[in-house]
Amino acid sequence: MDYKVADLTLADYGRMEIELAEHEMPGLMAMRERYGKEQPLKGARIAGSLHMTIQTAVLIETLVALGADVRWATCNIFSTQDHAAAAVVVGQGTQDAPAGTPVFAWKGETLAEYWDEAEKVFAFTDAEGNPAGPNVLLDDGGDITLLLHKGVEFEKAGVVPPQDSTDNEEFKEVLRVLARSVENDPQRWTTIAAGIKGVSEETTTGVLRLYERFKEGSLLFPAINVNDSVTKSKFDNKYGCRHSLVDGINRATDVMIGGKVAVVCGYGDVGKGSAESLRGQGARVIVTEIDPICALQAAMDGYEVRRLESVIDTADIFVTTTGNFDIIRSEHFEQMKHQAIVGNIGHFDNEIDMAGLAKIPGVVKQEIKPQVHQWVFPDGKKIIVLSEGRLLNLGNATGHPSFVMSNSFTNQVLAQIDLFTKADQYELGVHVLPKHLDEEVARLHLDALGVELTELTKEQAAYLGVDVAGPYKSDHYRY
Amino acid sequence: MDYKVADLTLADYGRMEIELAEHEMPGLMAMRERYGKEQPLKGARIAGSLHMTIQTAVLIETLVALGADVRWATCNIFSTQDHAAAAVVVGQGTQDAPAGTPVFAWKGETLAEYWDEAEKVFAFTDAEGNPAGPNVLLDDGGDITLLLHKGVEFEKAGVVPPQDSTDNEEFKEVLRVLARSVENDPQRWTTIAAGIKGVSEETTTGVLRLYERFKEGSLLFPAINVNDSVTKSKFDNKYGCRHSLVDGINRATDVMIGGKVAVVCGYGDVGKGSAESLRGQGARVIVTEIDPICALQAAMDGYEVRRLESVIDTADIFVTTTGNFDIIRSEHFEQMKHQAIVGNIGHFDNEIDMAGLAKIPGVVKQEIKPQVHQWVFPDGKKIIVLSEGRLLNLGNATGHPSFVMSNSFTNQVLAQIDLFTKADQYELGVHVLPKHLDEEVARLHLDALGVELTELTKEQAAYLGVDVAGPYKSDHYRY
Amino acid sequence: MDYKVADLTLADYGRMEIELAEHEMPGLMAMRERYGKEQPLKGARIAGSLHMTIQTAVLIETLVALGADVRWATCNIFSTQDHAAAAVVVGQGTQDAPAGTPVFAWKGETLAEYWDEAEKVFAFTDAEGNPAGPNVLLDDGGDITLLLHKGVEFEKAGVVPPQDSTDNEEFKEVLRVLARSVENDPQRWTTIAAGIKGVSEETTTGVLRLYERFKEGSLLFPAINVNDSVTKSKFDNKYGCRHSLVDGINRATDVMIGGKVAVVCGYGDVGKGSAESLRGQGARVIVTEIDPICALQAAMDGYEVRRLESVIDTADIFVTTTGNFDIIRSEHFEQMKHQAIVGNIGHFDNEIDMAGLAKIPGVVKQEIKPQVHQWVFPDGKKIIVLSEGRLLNLGNATGHPSFVMSNSFTNQVLAQIDLFTKADQYELGVHVLPKHLDEEVARLHLDALGVELTELTKEQAAYLGVDVAGPYKSDHYRY
Amino acid sequence: MDYKVADLTLADYGRMEIELAEHEMPGLMAMRERYGKEQPLKGARIAGSLHMTIQTAVLIETLVALGADVRWATCNIFSTQDHAAAAVVVGQGTQDAPAGTPVFAWKGETLAEYWDEAEKVFAFTDAEGNPAGPNVLLDDGGDITLLLHKGVEFEKAGVVPPQDSTDNEEFKEVLRVLARSVENDPQRWTTIAAGIKGVSEETTTGVLRLYERFKEGSLLFPAINVNDSVTKSKFDNKYGCRHSLVDGINRATDVMIGGKVAVVCGYGDVGKGSAESLRGQGARVIVTEIDPICALQAAMDGYEVRRLESVIDTADIFVTTTGNFDIIRSEHFEQMKHQAIVGNIGHFDNEIDMAGLAKIPGVVKQEIKPQVHQWVFPDGKKIIVLSEGRLLNLGNATGHPSFVMSNSFTNQVLAQIDLFTKADQYELGVHVLPKHLDEEVARLHLDALGVELTELTKEQAAYLGVDVAGPYKSDHYRY
Repeated sequence: MDYKVADLTLADYGRMEIELAEHEMPGLMAMRERYGKEQPLKGARIAGSLHMTIQTAVLIETLVALGADVRWATCNIFSTQDHAAAAVVVGQGTQDAPAGTPVFAWKGETLAEYWDEAEKVFAFTDAEGNPAGPNVLLDDGGDITLLLHKGVEFEKAGVVPPQDSTDNEEFKEVLRVLARSVENDPQRWTTIAAGIKGVSEETTTGVLRLYERFKEGSLLFPAINVNDSVTKSKFDNKYGCRHSLVDGINRATDVMIGGKVAVVCGYGDVGKGSAESLRGQGARVIVTEIDPICALQAAMDGYEVRRLESVIDTADIFVTTTGNFDIIRSEHFEQMKHQAIVGNIGHFDNEIDMAGLAKIPGVVKQEIKPQVHQWVFPDGKKIIVLSEGRLLNLGNATGHPSFVMSNSFTNQVLAQIDLFTKADQYELGVHVLPKHLDEEVARLHLDALGVELTELTKEQAAYLGVDVAGPYKSDHYRY
Repeated sequence: MDYKVADLTLADYGRMEIELAEHEMPGLMAMRERYGKEQPLKGARIAGSLHMTIQTAVLIETLVALGADVRWATCNIFSTQDHAAAAVVVGQGTQDAPAGTPVFAWKGETLAEYWDEAEKVFAFTDAEGNPAGPNVLLDDGGDITLLLHKGVEFEKAGVVPPQDSTDNEEFKEVLRVLARSVENDPQRWTTIAAGIKGVSEETTTGVLRLYERFKEGSLLFPAINVNDSVTKSKFDNKYGCRHSLVDGINRATDVMIGGKVAVVCGYGDVGKGSAESLRGQGARVIVTEIDPICALQAAMDGYEVRRLESVIDTADIFVTTTGNFDIIRSEHFEQMKHQAIVGNIGHFDNEIDMAGLAKIPGVVKQEIKPQVHQWVFPDGKKIIVLSEGRLLNLGNATGHPSFVMSNSFTNQVLAQIDLFTKADQYELGVHVLPKHLDEEVARLHLDALGVELTELTKEQAAYLGVDVAGPYKSDHYRY
Repeated sequence: MDYKVADLTLADYGRMEIELAEHEMPGLMAMRERYGKEQPLKGARIAGSLHMTIQTAVLIETLVALGADVRWATCNIFSTQDHAAAAVVVGQGTQDAPAGTPVFAWKGETLAEYWDEAEKVFAFTDAEGNPAGPNVLLDDGGDITLLLHKGVEFEKAGVVPPQDSTDNEEFKEVLRVLARSVENDPQRWTTIAAGIKGVSEETTTGVLRLYERFKEGSLLFPAINVNDSVTKSKFDNKYGCRHSLVDGINRATDVMIGGKVAVVCGYGDVGKGSAESLRGQGARVIVTEIDPICALQAAMDGYEVRRLESVIDTADIFVTTTGNFDIIRSEHFEQMKHQAIVGNIGHFDNEIDMAGLAKIPGVVKQEIKPQVHQWVFPDGKKIIVLSEGRLLNLGNATGHPSFVMSNSFTNQVLAQIDLFTKADQYELGVHVLPKHLDEEVARLHLDALGVELTELTKEQAAYLGVDVAGPYKSDHYRY
Repeated sequence: MDYKVADLTLADYGRMEIELAEHEMPGLMAMRERYGKEQPLKGARIAGSLHMTIQTAVLIETLVALGADVRWATCNIFSTQDHAAAAVVVGQGTQDAPAGTPVFAWKGETLAEYWDEAEKVFAFTDAEGNPAGPNVLLDDGGDITLLLHKGVEFEKAGVVPPQDSTDNEEFKEVLRVLARSVENDPQRWTTIAAGIKGVSEETTTGVLRLYERFKEGSLLFPAINVNDSVTKSKFDNKYGCRHSLVDGINRATDVMIGGKVAVVCGYGDVGKGSAESLRGQGARVIVTEIDPICALQAAMDGYEVRRLESVIDTADIFVTTTGNFDIIRSEHFEQMKHQAIVGNIGHFDNEIDMAGLAKIPGVVKQEIKPQVHQWVFPDGKKIIVLSEGRLLNLGNATGHPSFVMSNSFTNQVLAQIDLFTKADQYELGVHVLPKHLDEEVARLHLDALGVELTELTKEQAAYLGVDVAGPYKSDHYRY
């Protein structure tokens, strides 16, 4: 008996994908099993802003399964998977997939729509049916944290600056939304902020903003930096890129990687995962580095370490992983071989100087297929650029697999529980998740991999000076 | 300046893809460079039957560049890439992409159309403008070889059997085409066969048919078995599958392979490439084998070697690579874990007993997306099956990359040259390509990989008892 | 022309080995080149206590080449290489190998001799020929630091406790030496301590003692913890053990590692290097872990992770790397297979419970060769134990290769320079070497490996918020 | 209770080592278990000539355990392990280690002694106590085969040439022995030869001699070429060298291989194993090749492939594996870096031109330790040469581990059984061991590695066209 995808509603299709993802997100499923009865988030009103994908759907439904009331927006106008959003909104009316979680996101929002929707995650109703603000935030990049802090700032100032006070198109929308809000209720954001126990933040960028806010004295409540957990950073960077680099190159080009010479710019965690990814396919990998320690690690791992200039005219594949800018520049493009492949898996699209490439006299850009272009030089040489220099694992592959996100999101759930239930233990400031919770996230992913963990005896724990249940390492341990 | 794919004609799009592929097919391009002036195939009329893809387009245009007159059909009703066919037909009127090579193939032919088109590759016109048959065949699976042999057989018998003499739907079409032909010209195939210098055959199946025909005394001309060249078999099997196995799994499931337990059934060349592919992504690979030598090799390579039954309920991914049938059966499916992934990269779709799976009481098949299905068991357990048990590197990825096909097709070109120019040196029979040509194929792919080859001194060659130019190894050398 | 080892004096033989080692210790040689003229250690009187090996000889001669006056004892009664000591004492009268550095060490000292010699490193003569104390200490394990601190403590108390106040045989000797000293000069140690700018300590154990002393308020001068530099810990642990684990097993047993099942207990840096070492030889490696993060890392690296009990009766090789005790116990030995091989590369000999093994009724220990024993069980089963449970890379191989020690010792030299020239910048306490010096150590080893380091542009450095010359990473970066 | 090596007799020490080796030679032990009762070699009188080592002792005692009467000499004047010989001679009077097998070998024989002892392996006594010749030979290099063939030749000619008819010192001894023998009994060798069912030969060299003898028509009985079994050649070459290359380099130099650049000359089986060995330690491996197929394999395996000249002045380690001569020559030595390490694991000592090195003007050779020399150039540059250019795995390590020899020797035992029991099935000629026996050797080594072998169903075997019990592959299958 066949059952066609075409026959499914959007929500049903989303539900099918969510069920597939749940199996690959054992950390979140373990949270449901462990805390489903205890309901530690009973009473929590969580305002969330994070890419509305299938994986996020599993996160949302986990928060709900732990007792939380949740409202959700996306943190990016393009990244919403509409079937994921639909499934979360519909729910199944069961504990694992409860009905009716409000989601304010769709693929291809305008900036105006984006900020209108962001505002909606603050509009809870409390148990008695009265309007209420959230008491915890879960943020990715810091947009709803910004909205709230700016709201408080302008309410205090008594005035919201006019939209034409800024050139930033996006901030114009923030001002518009806040002006409208303050007109309705001049204390709304101040009231909401007073009820917030804290925020957990997903990304480097968001964390950076929080540290700056704390330094300048404007941070309104404690924040947990989920980004620097070992189980977040190693998975997002090393293991995630080992998975998605060859995946992205394969889908984009169908070129055989084996036997080719691939240059990986940078040997941090992303570079380490990328180099392993390419070597696993039989490529000969050359690394470039600016940090002598990382360079020495690359050499000890058996990689050739060169300057980009030394290999620019002989390598077949170039991948930037540095977190820096202007790594591959127009002078490099000019020296590359015909049909060299160039991509970025680092952070922003400025690792590769796309603007510089476009300015080379006579160069013409041709689309081979979406996210894959060949740049034709006057002499006929062609260079293949992936995802226009943006992250190739997002543009040419499908981003992080669910198992990676499970690690990251289990950190989020633990942070939410800690913020909600132990708010008094968190001073104002930006906190890394305690190591025992980082270890807990790892622990929750072991069964799915068939790992048996050994348990310390009391005597052994005493010998090491640790608790039998951990944490086992000092904070500066490097793993 | 942008240049959109959408603005291209089918032929132009094909031409763009052909140019990309040419770079990855250095063996063929080297043949053009080396023999372009010499025109060793001048006078050759090559009838070809092989999947009409972009890579085949590069092959066809190489044969033409060497002087041949070529007519082409596909060997599979589904595999034609229409833009490749269009580009070859249009050509560019240059030496590298000459205008007007007739191609008789499109995606989605009926069986009747398939055999009608196959017949057309025999209808050459000679230099004087008179009708003529081919003088060399290039076959994949043996269909045009069959047509010709059956034609001769029926002409000799003076009668073509009626269509209802067979239950085989495909052979009915063969009989129809031959009946029509014999009616027109009762000596057509006999005449053509007399002019054929030989056939080069691409596949195991086709080679097997040739050996059988030779054994039973019905083979009409010499045949070259391209399939067993080292540069064909290692690339098609070991390196090709290293490339495409993880590619197929990634595109199909987006599941993280790292940390998972993957079972590779069989440790021949396909299994060796598959195991390396999965290990390169951080999976823990377990091998099953029936041949003690291959099993010992797997163990010495650091893999766990178990019986399928021993690991059926703990592994996450199962891949068949055996060349045998009934490897994964219904009793295995019943014991697998929820969301186990099952695929075949071996040969036929009978490595996995799909029929047995479908017969398990209460099991329901749901499409997740094309070529990816979950089979839901009555207890809710789901098993994910790729490409319905057919070759996952074709169904879920894009088959062999161009570099692999370059090795295979350069063997074909060398075989065609040898058959056409040295026909007298080939006795009736099935011949492996001489080792020096196998070495030549390898040699033509070295520059593209930046390989520097060392040359023997005369003294060293004498010491080894070989020629400076090779061949370097005995025929039974195992590589 | 042959030149026999047998014809060499001990010092000449040491000199030959020193020259071989110098090539493998590029960090130290670079220090000589860079600072040889500048003489930053001019005026430094360095009292050193560290294994008197060939590598240490290169360290000593580097300190001297930088201007220091050096006196040296060993930190272990067994580890002295007499030819190394001889060569250092003799010197060559050149800058690189100056004549006359006093070394107080020989292989096989008694405890009494050991402490008598340790005292001698404090007996400098200043530029004017007057008796003087050292002004910097370089310690491994903290013995000369202990001698000095105890001396000061007892001088303050006005009395040295009698030898029979302790059961510790070694501390009896300390008391004997100090009693003699105080009798001669009741302010000797107090005077010396006042002139000390600081100590650099090599080991975990020594560092631990320093932290305890600082916590209890008895630390007399600043200390630099060399042990936790990345270039020290990764080399000593991960890369060093990758080298020496298979080396030790090979020399001890000549058993083929390929195809065997090897259990690595612990997946910290030592475990990571050990697992890689065994996998590189074709073994199938199984890891045991107590820390869920490290266990997850092992799984993501493709290793099976089990409890020791689960694999005790099937594995061929067992290696402890934990830093903990009682990892392999008598109940484990009893379940192992015949001719299982057991060794420790962790820290102390208590990782394997040798005492428990010896107490198993009826077990008999037989020497196969030095440092390799088989323990014969009453049923005839034999277990092979390496180095009697002590560090197998020391007992069965030759310890860390020179390149590893070059990293460690370059940290020492930089620490000595910093302590001597910037003493005022070091508050009382235990300091990790600043990251820019850690990076410097790495930098000095790159040329020897043919590594080309990329340099940041000013703009890139600004973008990252770092200096062009580094340091490049935050202190908690995990590498 | 301790038990000292020093207290053991030579034979007892040999016995201890034999028992350790037996565990690592599961193929031979399985032969004893399977055939111990059946006694297939009952009545066989085996004359053996093969290095008299511990592993050979296990072979000899296996032949005896299967019923054979055995007499043994060595095939090399230096390679005898006297404790192995002593143990075999003494035996234990049990089935597994029977008393009284005559061994005619000791370490350091003269050439005269060597050939006197070789003759003694022919002097059996039959069941009735009468003098008898052997009925099967087991040879390594062909010396006893030579003695017998020359004896027959000279007996036929009626005269043994005088010793001064040859310049070859070794052949003089052959002539001496045969002259003495013919004087005693002019038909001795002719009689013996008539009773010989065949010879099994271990090495390439011996096999080559046999083929030549067969071609020229002088071969007297069938021969089995054990050398080309998969289980012999892959183990001796690929896996054996993976084991022993790094072992040899480590023992010789204690230099850290990780991070170094190592050049492997040749990528046949020895080269493949060597490259893997070095890569497993973290070296960056560069391959040189003359065969384009092997070169392409190296590239596809991720190695850089260069000409020796291109990397001669940058690499740290050079290893020859070619089977050819004059690979590393004086002009190469002159360009190498200071303290480059050079060794040969190929076949003969002429892969490295040691004579050319010694002739470089001004170069001086110094022994660092036995089998490790530094060659000092006039400018002070030193090159380290291992084992004087001879096989470094023999000179610097301990040769093949027992597990490798178990594969090789199990082939020998099976060959002996086949020759003795199925002599009529072997025509005169040189035969490779049938594939089913090669598979059998592999099968007998699987249990020791914990391998579970899958069994074909009858239907699957029929589908493949093979027997359920094998053989599974065609003769030209490449593995």
